[in-house]
Amino acid sequence: MTEYTIDYSIPAKDNNVHSKWSQTLDPVVEAKPGDVISFECRDAWNGLIDKDTTAEEVPDALAEREGGMPITGPVAVEGASPGDVLAVEILDVEHDDWGWTSFRPREDEFGLLYEEFEEWGLHYWHLEGGVGEFVDGIEIPLDPFPGTIGLAPADETEQNMGPPHDAGGNMDTKHLTAGTTLYLPVEVEDALLSIGDGHAAQGDGEICGGAIETPITLNVRLDVLPNWDISQPQYLMSDGNSSREDVPTYATMGISDDLMEAARKATLAMVEHLQVARNLSAHDAYILTSVAADLKINEIVDRPNWVVSSHIPEDIFPK
Amino acid sequence: MTEYTIDYSIPAKDNNVHSKWSQTLDPVVEAKPGDVISFECRDAWNGLIDKDTTAEEVPDALAEREGGMPITGPVAVEGASPGDVLAVEILDVEHDDWGWTSFRPREDEFGLLYEEFEEWGLHYWHLEGGVGEFVDGIEIPLDPFPGTIGLAPADETEQNMGPPHDAGGNMDTKHLTAGTTLYLPVEVEDALLSIGDGHAAQGDGEICGGAIETPITLNVRLDVLPNWDISQPQYLMSDGNSSREDVPTYATMGISDDLMEAARKATLAMVEHLQVARNLSAHDAYILTSVAADLKINEIVDRPNWVVSSHIPEDIFPK
Repeated sequence: MTEYTIDYSIPAKDNNVHSKWSQTLDPVVEAKPGDVISFECRDAWNGLIDKDTTAEEVPDALAEREGGMPITGPVAVEGASPGDVLAVEILDVEHDDWGWTSFRPREDEFGLLYEEFEEWGLHYWHLEGGVGEFVDGIEIPLDPFPGTIGLAPADETEQNMGPPHDAGGNMDTKHLTAGTTLYLPVEVEDALLSIGDGHAAQGDGEICGGAIETPITLNVRLDVLPNWDISQPQYLMSDGNSSREDVPTYATMGISDDLMEAARKATLAMVEHLQVARNLSAHDAYILTSVAADLKINEIVDRPNWVVSSHIPEDIFPK
Repeated sequence: MTEYTIDYSIPAKDNNVHSKWSQTLDPVVEAKPGDVISFECRDAWNGLIDKDTTAEEVPDALAEREGGMPITGPVAVEGASPGDVLAVEILDVEHDDWGWTSFRPREDEFGLLYEEFEEWGLHYWHLEGGVGEFVDGIEIPLDPFPGTIGLAPADETEQNMGPPHDAGGNMDTKHLTAGTTLYLPVEVEDALLSIGDGHAAQGDGEICGGAIETPITLNVRLDVLPNWDISQPQYLMSDGNSSREDVPTYATMGISDDLMEAARKATLAMVEHLQVARNLSAHDAYILTSVAADLKINEIVDRPNWVVSSHIPEDIFPK
């Protein structure tokens, strides 16, 4: 990773935070391609849960959170137009020294196994030395990332923060860590990028509806890639950017309210990627997805839309 | 891995091969817990495709294959009864020096993207030095495994080889390589284990319906674990047994004709596993699946049943 200097820092003050997707929001920063932006991001519940909150008090905290998840932005990017792609290179992500994970009870119908749990659940995490302490000596390696990165949608109506949309949003995808570059399809003039929902660690799927939730500050470098027509997000993971994937990997994402359709979209995008980026025939690309690409369920709780990604290791291609 | 001696070798002769699941088949070997069995396995299409077959001739080869995929077995295991688990430790897998991958056209409605391809597809692979040669210098690391490992089902009617069932079968799961131990729920007396469908490499999902198909010979050690009530397969991957996963990992599988249901089953099994094997509360287990377990689509083409697995790295637990 090359060295960088920060062009703009956006503190998570009220004026810089919003909780709906909309193309009518005023930008908090007007940036140019190549700029590095530092985003300070609140946690998903707007700081309403702290170390003294009990599981019983969690529902009240959620009720107190007005208007949905607070995310930082939007940033207008000069020259980004519909039909272009905004590249968001994640340079560095810092998390707080503590975090929390909660799940909701059956009646809330949220989380993959909501039918199995009658009560709210809550765990606090002490985050230090690259790991989060769980129970019984269990330590989770930390690899922080923003659960939400997205652009304003083409849809003119205000959109809720919960489900991800074609231009990103609450994708809750654990692979968007430092070293990954995320490619988002631009749907409105100047792209309007916002980021939030800090996670210190998460599994593919975000099963119970929560990661290790924590405030984060992340630095990203922006670039505009003109005339690259993708319909949903893609990402490139650099060498060693994840504790579980030790080679550079390219991924295409499928977002849909049906897992099969999401898997089909992710795979179709991978076939197209292999044709464009690797000059393969559709025939060869399809075969390659079958023998070398991995389908992962990145997110399965942000109703009504789920995220499936297709991962291809970059080291299978000749240098 | 400890050294071992082979107790029984089963050549892939006609008498040792079957192409339906049935509890009425006569065993070809009667084994005891602890025995090591060497299975010689034909490729999925019974050797009807060879290096001279053209893509145009593939449909004829498939038509010629009578009665479905040929797998080797069954092996009766003394003392295995319904309600027990058969552990199949995969010790070693050897593949042939060539393989093939095909996909079917739209009209066959097989493969995740069948709607996108009008023609049959076919690729031959030269397999040498641990890699398979694709086009344009692309090399796929080989990690051979059997696409099909399963026990006779409780259902008294004959079952087709295509879709996996509760006791395994055509799961097409790339993680079942040397070093992995597969746990299968026993549904009939003596378990009746069969193995086949050699794959030299495959991605999670087996997208186009084919891996690198090749004959294989594999050695497995059998064990009977009494009174362990699992309803679908689970597996433990040892350290370094896969090119993409460098820590020991435990996985639970969900098999269903609905991906969401498969994901739920895999996750529910993981929650139960964490309670039993790690003595966690259901509350803690649910949270742990969310922050440390990965949902993978292992197989999405063996209509009508798909396989989703939940992977938890073993190195997060204290020694």
